[in-house]
Amino acid sequence: MAISNIRYGEGVTKEIGMDLQNLGARRVCLMTDKNLSQLPPVKAVLNSLAKCGINFQMYDSVRVEPTDQSFLDAITFAQKGEFDAYVAVGGGSVIDTCKAANLYASSPTSAFLDYVNSPIGKGKPVSVPLKPLIAVPTTAGTGSETTGVAIFDFKELKVKTGIASRAIKPTLGIIDPLHTLSMPERIVANSGFDVLCHALESYTALPYNMRSPCPSNPISRPAYQGSNPISDVWALHALRIVAKYLKRAIRNPEDREARANMHLASAFAGIGFGNAGVHLCHGMSYPISGLVKTYKPKDYNVDHSLVPHGLSVVLTSPAVFAFTAQINPERHLEAAEILGADIRTARIKDAGFILADTLRKFLFDLNVDDGLAAIGYSKADIPALVKGTLPQERVTKLSPRPQTEEDLSALFEASMKLY
Amino acid sequence: MAISNIRYGEGVTKEIGMDLQNLGARRVCLMTDKNLSQLPPVKAVLNSLAKCGINFQMYDSVRVEPTDQSFLDAITFAQKGEFDAYVAVGGGSVIDTCKAANLYASSPTSAFLDYVNSPIGKGKPVSVPLKPLIAVPTTAGTGSETTGVAIFDFKELKVKTGIASRAIKPTLGIIDPLHTLSMPERIVANSGFDVLCHALESYTALPYNMRSPCPSNPISRPAYQGSNPISDVWALHALRIVAKYLKRAIRNPEDREARANMHLASAFAGIGFGNAGVHLCHGMSYPISGLVKTYKPKDYNVDHSLVPHGLSVVLTSPAVFAFTAQINPERHLEAAEILGADIRTARIKDAGFILADTLRKFLFDLNVDDGLAAIGYSKADIPALVKGTLPQERVTKLSPRPQTEEDLSALFEASMKLY
Repeated sequence: MAISNIRYGEGVTKEIGMDLQNLGARRVCLMTDKNLSQLPPVKAVLNSLAKCGINFQMYDSVRVEPTDQSFLDAITFAQKGEFDAYVAVGGGSVIDTCKAANLYASSPTSAFLDYVNSPIGKGKPVSVPLKPLIAVPTTAGTGSETTGVAIFDFKELKVKTGIASRAIKPTLGIIDPLHTLSMPERIVANSGFDVLCHALESYTALPYNMRSPCPSNPISRPAYQGSNPISDVWALHALRIVAKYLKRAIRNPEDREARANMHLASAFAGIGFGNAGVHLCHGMSYPISGLVKTYKPKDYNVDHSLVPHGLSVVLTSPAVFAFTAQINPERHLEAAEILGADIRTARIKDAGFILADTLRKFLFDLNVDDGLAAIGYSKADIPALVKGTLPQERVTKLSPRPQTEEDLSALFEASMKLY
Repeated sequence: MAISNIRYGEGVTKEIGMDLQNLGARRVCLMTDKNLSQLPPVKAVLNSLAKCGINFQMYDSVRVEPTDQSFLDAITFAQKGEFDAYVAVGGGSVIDTCKAANLYASSPTSAFLDYVNSPIGKGKPVSVPLKPLIAVPTTAGTGSETTGVAIFDFKELKVKTGIASRAIKPTLGIIDPLHTLSMPERIVANSGFDVLCHALESYTALPYNMRSPCPSNPISRPAYQGSNPISDVWALHALRIVAKYLKRAIRNPEDREARANMHLASAFAGIGFGNAGVHLCHGMSYPISGLVKTYKPKDYNVDHSLVPHGLSVVLTSPAVFAFTAQINPERHLEAAEILGADIRTARIKDAGFILADTLRKFLFDLNVDDGLAAIGYSKADIPALVKGTLPQERVTKLSPRPQTEEDLSALFEASMKLY
């Protein structure tokens, strides 16, 4: 159980210059994206760096939903800069890109595929020391500030994959809810759905003592350990916050209580899934994002088509939990109750349907696109979506219920239309 | 919010040799106490060290309820040994002693008082790098495997104090519930009371945003930050486990489910109070232990009189929470409900009395000594007990309700007899 240090509070971003001084940093790499570079979170960081006289270079070319190419561009910047500390200000795309930049700049002789998850890459363990990385999340979703995972879109294979190692976990996450006030509605919604699925998937993931293989040497164990008594605490707590605050946070940008709570829930769920792992919603989301056709979501100011990560994850969630519930129906029913279902007269064998219905209602209330069809997919795409899911065994094998290609096919089909 | 890494599972102690290899350790210091050195937890560690060919020296002279003298003895051993890693197998006494040994061996030019909490010591921040320390707790109480605190009895002043710094937090805590099967009944009870008070005190501690002074530089902040949304999660979760399992764990040594859950609760409460802090029960406990007369508790195989830490903490708890409840009665009532009180018709202004009654009943059911009088104190001792509490401001100032010397005096008096 590896947990990042986090600091929480309105305005705590102003301390980042002192943190860097305390770390002895002399050349800092500040990463963000083009939109954020003009917004208050980056300004707050710049002010603090200036106040403390911190020498830094800014890289603001992070791509939203990064690719191998965009990772490599950031890595080149990091290698040239010879930095001794990193600061990432943004959502998961920025924080993940910064983790990769820190990793490969610290390991200059490694080929890019060395650390990429197998079977796509070689999945080598990280044994080089990295530089400190302070993450300042500006969305309430990814939890990347607490995890050792960095996800990107591997263009050549048209599939999302990533790097997973405790070594790339940020040194400190600064959870400053003021930053969430800059988020447009759909970004709040989609990043919130990521929190929802992190909580649901890590709570229902294969238990830690049923996972295999179970390497005898602790250093060889994966970052994702299966559900366990500690990740369960984080997952359930995050789920309760999502149930109470996500709708409020989406509907009213001025609802500071709701946005602050979702910002914390994101970190809580991150600590949960960062240790337990996620399973089918995430495993199936990578081809949904990777194979995007022309979908351009509202509120995302980007020049390329994309399916936001949280949306790609949540659209299959009703089908996934209807499928997995037969293994641990009690937990599925408990999750449904937390999300508002009346389970007083529920039968345990209906747990999957009840959770699926609860999720559908939740998504309908929040104006979420009506399934994969609404974001451009048809039945003809299912074989490609299944093919893109198969290499995601790092997560799919954490599903409590094993799945065949036919099962995956049926799950994609059931997710074409939700309402 | 600084959180230790922990590993949980029956039998995970056998991996410690590999952990030390992975850390590159070549000369390991193994600390424990005389009783434990013959018991299964130490044997499990020795087996693993032998299997991995780890070179180590054993120090088994840790004193139960350590003193400045016993700390210094362990420090001398550590300084001579030039170790590159430490393993502590035991309860809080062993883990705390090992933290101090690691600290002063890593900082050989420091005087002992340099790092001791002010106003007794100088409370200097730790800036030297320490060696890795793996803690293997054998009681379910201290949570020391997750905290940056080491407590000892300062003989000259007849008062308990300690060292508090994130720098001394163990690198890894190995929570192996098999070890709790070696615990005699009263050790289960008293260490469980420590968990109970960690949870109650950290949940009711002054909130983090009301604490003062609040140093502007993060490095100057104390380990104990006040109650906060993250420590609250751990405190409540630990309290629920205590309510469900402590009595079972005490009464039946074979109840592995109960003992395993209490072992985890100890770490959970440790993560909570290690960040939030404790307040009056702990502040008042230090003179209760430090001024001990002739009390020798059942089940403790020691050659000196002592008041076990958990007992010294819990005996004042009814009086303390009756006193503090007026500041945040909702939380006090919530705690009472978790501990089994029926609060359906309770009035909020009675929260303190209800929690106090619930605690008294809980202690009575567990055959706990009937107050301070039963462990050898009388009214004549109250001035000395108050005097011994005054220097504990590191914790007493985290009480939600400020207290005068008269208040402390009344709290000790109310704790003379419980039933």
